[in-house]
Amino acid sequence: MFKRNIKISGIGTYVPNRTVYSSEIDSLIGAKSGWSERKSGVKKRYFVTDETASFMGAEAAKRAIEDASIKLEEVDCIVSGSGTMEQAIPCNAALIQKQLGLQHSGVPSFDVNSTCLSFLTALDMISYAIESGRFQNVLIVSSEIASVGLNWKQDESSILFGDGAVAVVVSKSNGQSKIISSHMETYSVGAHLSEIRGGGTKLHPREYSEQKKEDFLFDMDGKAIFKLSYKIMPTFINKLFKDTNLAMDDIKMVIPHQASASAMRIIRKKLGVNEDSFMTIIENYGNMIAASIPMALFESIKQGKVQRGDKVLFLGTSAGLSIGGIILEY
Amino acid sequence: MFKRNIKISGIGTYVPNRTVYSSEIDSLIGAKSGWSERKSGVKKRYFVTDETASFMGAEAAKRAIEDASIKLEEVDCIVSGSGTMEQAIPCNAALIQKQLGLQHSGVPSFDVNSTCLSFLTALDMISYAIESGRFQNVLIVSSEIASVGLNWKQDESSILFGDGAVAVVVSKSNGQSKIISSHMETYSVGAHLSEIRGGGTKLHPREYSEQKKEDFLFDMDGKAIFKLSYKIMPTFINKLFKDTNLAMDDIKMVIPHQASASAMRIIRKKLGVNEDSFMTIIENYGNMIAASIPMALFESIKQGKVQRGDKVLFLGTSAGLSIGGIILEY
Repeated sequence: MFKRNIKISGIGTYVPNRTVYSSEIDSLIGAKSGWSERKSGVKKRYFVTDETASFMGAEAAKRAIEDASIKLEEVDCIVSGSGTMEQAIPCNAALIQKQLGLQHSGVPSFDVNSTCLSFLTALDMISYAIESGRFQNVLIVSSEIASVGLNWKQDESSILFGDGAVAVVVSKSNGQSKIISSHMETYSVGAHLSEIRGGGTKLHPREYSEQKKEDFLFDMDGKAIFKLSYKIMPTFINKLFKDTNLAMDDIKMVIPHQASASAMRIIRKKLGVNEDSFMTIIENYGNMIAASIPMALFESIKQGKVQRGDKVLFLGTSAGLSIGGIILEY
Repeated sequence: MFKRNIKISGIGTYVPNRTVYSSEIDSLIGAKSGWSERKSGVKKRYFVTDETASFMGAEAAKRAIEDASIKLEEVDCIVSGSGTMEQAIPCNAALIQKQLGLQHSGVPSFDVNSTCLSFLTALDMISYAIESGRFQNVLIVSSEIASVGLNWKQDESSILFGDGAVAVVVSKSNGQSKIISSHMETYSVGAHLSEIRGGGTKLHPREYSEQKKEDFLFDMDGKAIFKLSYKIMPTFINKLFKDTNLAMDDIKMVIPHQASASAMRIIRKKLGVNEDSFMTIIENYGNMIAASIPMALFESIKQGKVQRGDKVLFLGTSAGLSIGGIILEY
């Protein structure tokens, strides 16, 4: 229970120009028409053609800044909260700063990474610095390109993902908007249940070969992840709500990571939340890694399902395996 | 000026078993005997053989925990502050948690990345959460494997780097130890002055080829980096000291990023600091990316040059291009 008086004062998104319907995925993986949509719950998602993560991130950021009614020059920190990197060095935030035309600004720019929970972890951690007055307007950008790392021979994972970016401006609030509670747990017993083994210092790209190519692609054991997540979820939720004087009924909208349609359905029932209070956007975007939760927030706001003063619950699991949540008074 | 009552309560290091003397580097790059040491100021460094970043990080962490006189079970957050990743997914901190045998602990684990400044950024950001009471004992681990990504055709950069890990335990203090001031600036006009272009979503490892191999190796324009760093340094230092009532003379030891011996010498003179108050370890370790600053702190303490109550100045630049500093009462 460590309240922080911060406010998501603006939000913006960018999706790639190319829309990919599940019929196209069916052809790609050699499945019967309709199979991948039935299996994943994803009707369409977006894949990049020539867009880079920093380009998408900067486009989303410009819209978030406009939505927050501030000037670009008022941004005083840029945090990339993404599970994928554009290049090995430097960090994404510096590349986004450049795309925004802030290359001479000196605005501090760094990355926070906890894979699919990167947005939540970035928001959670930076909120303390904002509350203390260190920063006034922090841009958190989650920009993800999943498509380049998918293994089309692994139906279970490849049919789920989409690319895109979401950015928010986070500012100090007068106390109306706030983080009411936040909590994160990591169980690395599941560290290898979803991973890309290659691309880092353990298996350098020079080791890439036809035989080893799957080591450089996303590999996921969905059933094992779900089993572990399902087991740790109830205690986690209790800890998140502890000392808040709130119950699940007080939450206007649960905004989950869009991991997979079937997993979300079971988790929703486990939490005892009805469909109207559980934001699902996977059918139109797929799983956008760390951009999923803020994209679901964006859609909740756009569709009028979340308004200022409403309490929302961000909740998700990620590779690691980590589970994270924030109760936010929006 | 945002003081935070935190204390580096323990520190530990790990270097790989293999010591690489500069004579070996001379042979490798076809230089005359003595050339690379004269040029870089590095006598020896360590290169991994079969050590992984998470293994080294966990070994350093165990020593830091022992040094802090706490139990492993008292660690309640693990932050990897490293400029290199072990694998693309998941984050390093989860892999380090597993190596520590904490795989069932639930201890939250995530990464902060600002390349060579990752340790400073992690310490700076997490200090707010510690001060607020969110965490009691945070493990920050900088574990770097530079050797795998060096371009032996680029003398300027390849002769500089070494591998290894440093970990610290950061706890709340009673007010004696504290962060007095911290500041960071990013100038992405220099984003491509030091980089590894490949390995991420922009240039996937599948694009690796004999022709493109240098895109997957570290590339640095040392002169341009130095020129930019030298230009932004004076104003940066003024901002870092602003409102602290401190001057450079009050600093017992400047602990710089060990970028290169020649750059450190010029910066030291520019800052008006004498040799005895400027910690240089590059001759024995090389540039260890984000592990350089904490390794220099470790050596300062071990050699009796820094004691409790002393004021130290952490200072460095990184790919991005970023410049960062912390004034710490140790």
